[in-house]
Amino acid sequence: MNEREIISIFDKLSRNKGRGLVQGIGDDCAVFKTGGDELWLVTMDTLVETIHFNNDWHPPFKLGWKSVAVNVSDIAAMGGNPTYAFLSLALPPDFSRQWLAEFSRGLAAACREYDCFLAGGDTVRSSEGIMITLTVMGHAAEDKILYRSNALSGDDIWVSGTLGSAAAGLDLCKRGRVDDGSVAPLVEAHCAPKPRLDLARRLATSGLVNAMIDLSDGLASDLAHICNQSSAGAVIQADLLPISGMVRDVAVELGKDPLHLALAGGEDYELLFTAPARNRNEIVSLADTGLLTRIGNMEKRPGVRLSFGISGGKSLPPKDITFLGFDHFKE
Amino acid sequence: MNEREIISIFDKLSRNKGRGLVQGIGDDCAVFKTGGDELWLVTMDTLVETIHFNNDWHPPFKLGWKSVAVNVSDIAAMGGNPTYAFLSLALPPDFSRQWLAEFSRGLAAACREYDCFLAGGDTVRSSEGIMITLTVMGHAAEDKILYRSNALSGDDIWVSGTLGSAAAGLDLCKRGRVDDGSVAPLVEAHCAPKPRLDLARRLATSGLVNAMIDLSDGLASDLAHICNQSSAGAVIQADLLPISGMVRDVAVELGKDPLHLALAGGEDYELLFTAPARNRNEIVSLADTGLLTRIGNMEKRPGVRLSFGISGGKSLPPKDITFLGFDHFKE
Repeated sequence: MNEREIISIFDKLSRNKGRGLVQGIGDDCAVFKTGGDELWLVTMDTLVETIHFNNDWHPPFKLGWKSVAVNVSDIAAMGGNPTYAFLSLALPPDFSRQWLAEFSRGLAAACREYDCFLAGGDTVRSSEGIMITLTVMGHAAEDKILYRSNALSGDDIWVSGTLGSAAAGLDLCKRGRVDDGSVAPLVEAHCAPKPRLDLARRLATSGLVNAMIDLSDGLASDLAHICNQSSAGAVIQADLLPISGMVRDVAVELGKDPLHLALAGGEDYELLFTAPARNRNEIVSLADTGLLTRIGNMEKRPGVRLSFGISGGKSLPPKDITFLGFDHFKE
Repeated sequence: MNEREIISIFDKLSRNKGRGLVQGIGDDCAVFKTGGDELWLVTMDTLVETIHFNNDWHPPFKLGWKSVAVNVSDIAAMGGNPTYAFLSLALPPDFSRQWLAEFSRGLAAACREYDCFLAGGDTVRSSEGIMITLTVMGHAAEDKILYRSNALSGDDIWVSGTLGSAAAGLDLCKRGRVDDGSVAPLVEAHCAPKPRLDLARRLATSGLVNAMIDLSDGLASDLAHICNQSSAGAVIQADLLPISGMVRDVAVELGKDPLHLALAGGEDYELLFTAPARNRNEIVSLADTGLLTRIGNMEKRPGVRLSFGISGGKSLPPKDITFLGFDHFKE
């Protein structure tokens, strides 16, 4: 049973219609009307000790930061403005006061940075390990919200920043290199990601973009979400993927394929979006030089394919990478 | 470190003001404005395996129901109408499909019963045990919302239903009597509580009530919340507390004090509210006969006191029971 099968159980049970609900299960956030001028967005993300983080090397300040950041990234991916955060924190009997103080400082710092209030929540005991669930709410103008479902065949596919950093950083942490200054940006990408909130707002308000998602499960999976929700497919070009020199170097060192880190690594919290080709120049002008990369195009044919272009005069066949990537429940 | 100390850490870090936030940390729900006619309420509750429930005897359908019910109870306690639910579910590697199917059926049944949509959430893996967090949102007219903070010295203190049933039921479950028909109402009170949503709405819209809370931590604790938030105190009469014959009988059998079950048991999900004495008759007429009981009065002096009245011609001194009851982190 994989994560999508589990989600589909709840999707079938839910009545995703009526009473102001514009978008239920199936996007980065739920979207609903309240009678005010703007729509409201809600997202919820859980971090579990030993599954999503490890207290041996994840500093509590950065974990508090990340708990907020991963939710803010979902709000950003729909073009929203974070407003309120709600925290449910499960702590084991032996939790340390020092850990809690640092964690809450990091959480508060991220709330300040992304302009949302901690407005409520729940604290409970766990039998073992720490579990952190945040619900973040935000708002956006109705006609500026970007869904996963509006990508069109022929759209350019864009990504912000570089890919694979967080996955490389996680691997480095596991190998005891959390304090290795030479790979600090990768460790930071895993421990304290910075969601692209400002860029996302510029993209959403520009009217130039058709569909957007944040990269949490990995490019191959998150692009498959856009394809499924838009009833379309995608081809991306391997040689266009933005992978930093540091990720390439570390991948060699760790015996990993940098392409696999970029496609399936997850947790980059970059933006993935699609836009008509005629908007290329205007889109580039919205971001700092080099921050946005075109990596392929939407197609009619379903699925996500990776194209290798011409290698040594021969064209390699494209590879199906639909939902290649992170799945919490993959067996 | 107790639960209130932990909450106060987050309370200090949060900026509970501005941007439409009417009530932050410190009530059953957060309350905020969205520009529409009504205010919105948000609550969040977590149930942890072995801490809040035990899969050995908690049927998954009833656990799914309870996950929704405990949150609906918070919305009800402020006079709100549940609207959307968001589920974060952490499942261990060895979770059973059968469990998940039954759990989700129970969750959907409670959503239907209390008229809220499952609109989103997150599913993650846990290393061990199941953890369930629900966020429920609701709405209410601004002038009908009942806070904990508006109780006045002299107010009558009222409670709905009877006290101690859920605590007795939990104890019976622990002793293997989950299928004992003779105590079924107590087992049901623990496994699948029924929040007083309709009654709460009638009380809130009546304009007769000053402050309200739901009984989740236990009468002594929840009344202490009202006292603290209202800068007041309370005296309740031991001989007025509504304790069912079944709870009294089971308490004797289990070697427990029925009074302690009623004061400190927790999880009754009944309504506790205060109202001016002049509204007594009108309040009684809002509920079925016998459903509401007056148990004491608000006072100026802080703290919660239990009065024993006259026993054998001698007046026993009142006992301080402030925050007697359930605390997840009590050492």
